Amino acid sequence: MTPKEALEISRSVAEEIEREVKKLSGTSEAGVTVGIGKDGTPSKKIDVIAEKIAIEYLLQHDVRVVSEEAGVVGEGDTYVALDPIDGTFNAVNGIPLYSVTLCFSSSIKLEDTFFSYVKNLATGDEYYSDGRSYKNGERINASETERLDCNAIVYYPVRRYPFRRMRIFGSASLEICMVADGSFDCFIDLRKSENGRGYLRVYDIAASLFIAKNAGAEITDLDGVSIWKKEISMEERFRVVVSGKPLHKKLLELL
Amino acid sequence: MTPKEALEISRSVAEEIEREVKKLSGTSEAGVTVGIGKDGTPSKKIDVIAEKIAIEYLLQHDVRVVSEEAGVVGEGDTYVALDPIDGTFNAVNGIPLYSVTLCFSSSIKLEDTFFSYVKNLATGDEYYSDGRSYKNGERINASETERLDCNAIVYYPVRRYPFRRMRIFGSASLEICMVADGSFDCFIDLRKSENGRGYLRVYDIAASLFIAKNAGAEITDLDGVSIWKKEISMEERFRVVVSGKPLHKKLLELL
Repeated sequence: MTPKEALEISRSVAEEIEREVKKLSGTSEAGVTVGIGKDGTPSKKIDVIAEKIAIEYLLQHDVRVVSEEAGVVGEGDTYVALDPIDGTFNAVNGIPLYSVTLCFSSSIKLEDTFFSYVKNLATGDEYYSDGRSYKNGERINASETERLDCNAIVYYPVRRYPFRRMRIFGSASLEICMVADGSFDCFIDLRKSENGRGYLRVYDIAASLFIAKNAGAEITDLDGVSIWKKEISMEERFRVVVSGKPLHKKLLELL
Repeated sequence: MTPKEALEISRSVAEEIEREVKKLSGTSEAGVTVGIGKDGTPSKKIDVIAEKIAIEYLLQHDVRVVSEEAGVVGEGDTYVALDPIDGTFNAVNGIPLYSVTLCFSSSIKLEDTFFSYVKNLATGDEYYSDGRSYKNGERINASETERLDCNAIVYYPVRRYPFRRMRIFGSASLEICMVADGSFDCFIDLRKSENGRGYLRVYDIAASLFIAKNAGAEITDLDGVSIWKKEISMEERFRVVVSGKPLHKKLLELL
């Protein structure tokens, strides 16, 4: 198989998954558990549908697929590591960061990879590499900074917390709206500004806090004090805990 | 002002910002620094353009606006806390999680809020509250879980790290692609599975690692060992550090 053939196959797989998955994303149906995958974790309906589409298409070619739910399928010469939906939680909750990913290798060794493909199914952004790397057809390059106080990193710490998932999306108002609609169980912001006060300002979160409150969420600072006496001014700063009422007291105790 | 009028104003502001900002999102122009805002932080071009549009529209009504770059503007009776773009970093980098947010209060007190509005400008998802809360016109409710091992939380820790921003989007393949294209300086995943090995599987990250490598990124495990000798199989697990070459050694020392 050539990189060009792998690109064509990848694009077809992505298009077929996209068609089915976009309809499901953000619906309660998407997140229904329909069994246990070969990786030992519960399979969501959206994963199972996407994987079925991908594997049926891939097996028309000379491949051996390694995938989350199905395990190893096929006996072809080209190894394909497939994740039909990377970011299932996002897909289920209508958060536009989930992708299909395919990695093609001429042997079982990762070092024999000759082509790979990642497409954000919500936005259509397409990344691939055939030895050079591209985003939406344009060459891309990694950052060349050598400063630890660099612009931005993605960081998954060792799990020392009880919650099943932890996220940082970088838009407090949307994150608090995601608590209001039940996608997330809570929003906690412990950050401080340089002078030791909270980091968030009133225009960052006032709108979403009102939405969360009226959706039944409890909102306080870290000491359990209501934030509603505060003012709409440039000076106010916030450190907040926003969650459904049953969870709120436990979170304050934990913090 | 009534909640209904505030909704109409909010929708118009969001539409006008959306039109200008969608063109800019993901372009290098969006992120150009064009001054210092009233909040004391550098203003990006995309923020300044969005705020100008919003304030011009809002000041046709009886409002006093409190906003990030401009500070307090207008002398009307209704206070409006405005963030024309919440999630500027995302907007600049083409990550589809940034919003316009507006909070309307009949006094300077947050507790006198009578309407608020948040719209994801990338996806069009619209949240608002007039006492009840809605997403895309449907009533929403916060989670009622009382379990600390709940499904998912958003959590911003106290800053004890040197990096300017830290993110967790929940799709490793897209996150690693964002390192490949320079949006992020690094991706670190320290998570372990229950048996003490890495959390990530080959199909989660093989594709994006190949894209990152060919975009010039360095990829190793936490001990600095190359991951390319690993196999495309269900058994392999990964804990990885992915970054541009100049930063990589410093990150390993830090960890």
